[in-house]
This record gives sequence, structure tokens and C-alpha cells, in this order.
Amino acid sequence: MPHDHSEPQPWNVLSSRYLCRKPWMTLREDRVRLPTGAVIDDYFVLEYPAWVNVIALTTDDGFVLVRQYRHGSQEVHYELPAGVCEPNDLDPEATARRELLEETGYGGGDWTAFMTLSANPGTHSNRSHTYLATGVIRIQEQQQEDTEDLRVHLVGRSEIVEVVLGGGMLQALHAAPLLKYLLIQSPSP
Amino acid sequence: MPHDHSEPQPWNVLSSRYLCRKPWMTLREDRVRLPTGAVIDDYFVLEYPAWVNVIALTTDDGFVLVRQYRHGSQEVHYELPAGVCEPNDLDPEATARRELLEETGYGGGDWTAFMTLSANPGTHSNRSHTYLATGVIRIQEQQQEDTEDLRVHLVGRSEIVEVVLGGGMLQALHAAPLLKYLLIQSPSP
Repeated sequence: MPHDHSEPQPWNVLSSRYLCRKPWMTLREDRVRLPTGAVIDDYFVLEYPAWVNVIALTTDDGFVLVRQYRHGSQEVHYELPAGVCEPNDLDPEATARRELLEETGYGGGDWTAFMTLSANPGTHSNRSHTYLATGVIRIQEQQQEDTEDLRVHLVGRSEIVEVVLGGGMLQALHAAPLLKYLLIQSPSP
Repeated sequence: MPHDHSEPQPWNVLSSRYLCRKPWMTLREDRVRLPTGAVIDDYFVLEYPAWVNVIALTTDDGFVLVRQYRHGSQEVHYELPAGVCEPNDLDPEATARRELLEETGYGGGDWTAFMTLSANPGTHSNRSHTYLATGVIRIQEQQQEDTEDLRVHLVGRSEIVEVVLGGGMLQALHAAPLLKYLLIQSPSP
């Protein structure tokens, strides 16, 4: 039997309420009706502002990465410099530039929008925007708040392949754009 | 000034409480002390069981993908067949095999563990395990519950590059392993 390639249709929201509305956690519970007719009484959506991160390459081809402890997974891994857009941040690239500078001290270079992803489209309302910044240079010292504890690492091109293929980057929102960058840089099959 | 490459240390949990404990949402609030001395009164952790997904390749080199409406992002994208481990699922590969069969009707083939990621290690306690299954075949009809509304698509090798580089797969936990697969299949630089 051939596959049904018609497009799945949106759900109908019958009612909504917030279970938690705090600065770092907005949890919504929706009662929804699916196109199948089924009703789900408690479908949970996590509302977040847009997130940003950046593949930052220095003038001598080093990737600017950070390491920090993450309390969800309770581990330390390599990450891209990243941040959260404020409600009035209309330009995610400006947020990404600010976060790169504050977290690592690097800035400048040529910036382009590179990839948009979701941590989990089933639960997350927001998107994560990755920028590619080439030719960045060290401009200043890191400027960390006391709730931040990041280490900056400059990682060479062959080492970054090992990091991302070898499980050294747990965060899917960071691994995916790095893998895309490495794929489009590699020779065509 | 050279970078400080010492490893960031774990946080101290001073107290914990659950704000929501439902079958599909477990939200924990921790009071934590960082190595810097700073105290965060409300750090939120989402507890989930392990997740699984599978890059399934048919005997004639088609990728078995699904499309479904996702109520967090309110959009439809391509996804890998995926699922959630039950608390007593000791073997994530068995869960992935069951989900592939139920969601798509495909099964069999050779299976290997391929990649482990997190949707967001800052907030998520769990990991997502990707398997690579080569040589799968259509065994049965899809078996969907009335809360599922998935369409199965067989996507060829050149088309899948377009999908994943062109923004057709929003879910980072699915895009990253597919990009890894395409990268290691491509000629070495």
C-alpha cells in the first residue's frame, strides 16, 4: 500500500492555562483536539524567547568554543557561545554578537545567518538561530556574571571533527550547525 | 592573557522541589550554589526518560522519515522516527525498533548505536540516543494511536541533503545525527 503523503493538520486549542510563569520558565498546559478527533487534556508547551549561538572562526582558523557545567545533564561538554534574546531584542544577530563578546572576549569578523533549529518542536515554542562569524579576533577580556563559570577554548579544524563526532558536544542545537558547517566544507561526493 | 582551561565544577544543590509531576511533564526547581559562590534560588530542570530515534535506510537506500504537526513550534517538518523509553525499557535500541515499526511499518536490518545528544543540557535531565539501521524493509502497516497523525516519507540520498541543509528538519536532535551520517559518508578532505 502506498504511503499517504497528505500534510498533517494543526491541532485545535480548546483551552490554555499557565502552570508556571517565572523569568526562566514559562510552562503552558493546553487542552487540544487533534484532526483524528482525539482530545488531549494536558499537552505541555514550554514558552521561551528566541535563542542564539555562533560558530566563530578566528583569523587563523580556530573555532571559539566554551566549556561549562550544565545542571540539567550534570556534565561539562564543549558548546558554541550562545545566549537568549531579551523580549526587546529585535535582532538575534545583535544578541549573538553581544553574547560572543561577553562570554569569550571575541568579536568583529563577517557574520551570516547559518541555521535555524528547535530543541524540541513538540514542547518548545521558540527557535534557536545559529550565525557563522568568520575572522573574529580577541577584543577584550571575558565579562562573566557571578552566575556564569565558562572556560574559553580555541579548537583547531581537525580537533573539532574529533570533538563533534566523538561525543564531545552533547548539545544538539550546537552539534547540528557545526556538522552542517563541516559537511558543506568537505569535498562533494 | 591566556585562556583558563581548568574544568568547570558541578553546582551544589541546596534544596529541590517539584512544581509539576505529570506523566508527560516533570518540572523540578533547585536552589543551587555555584563554585563562584553565587546562589540561584530557582533553577529549573525538566526530568524526562531517555529518548530514542533512528536513521533507517531501506535496502534500496531510501531514508525512512515522518512528517507530523508539532504543537510547540506549531509547524510540520521532516523528522526521524522517534520515541520515548518507558521507565522499564532497559534497552533503548529495543524501544527504537518498536517505535520504527509502529510509526512507519519498517523493521529488520542491521542496527548500531550512532550518537547521543541532549535537547538542552541546561534544562533537560535526559539523553536522546540515535541508532543507525541499514537494510530495513516494510514489514507491516503503520500502527498509530488516535493521538498520532504521522505521514511516512521515503527520501532519497540527494533529496535528504536538500532537506537537512535547507531547513526542512527543525528538530536538532534529528538534524545532528543525519548531518553526522552525511559527513562520515562524504569523501575525506
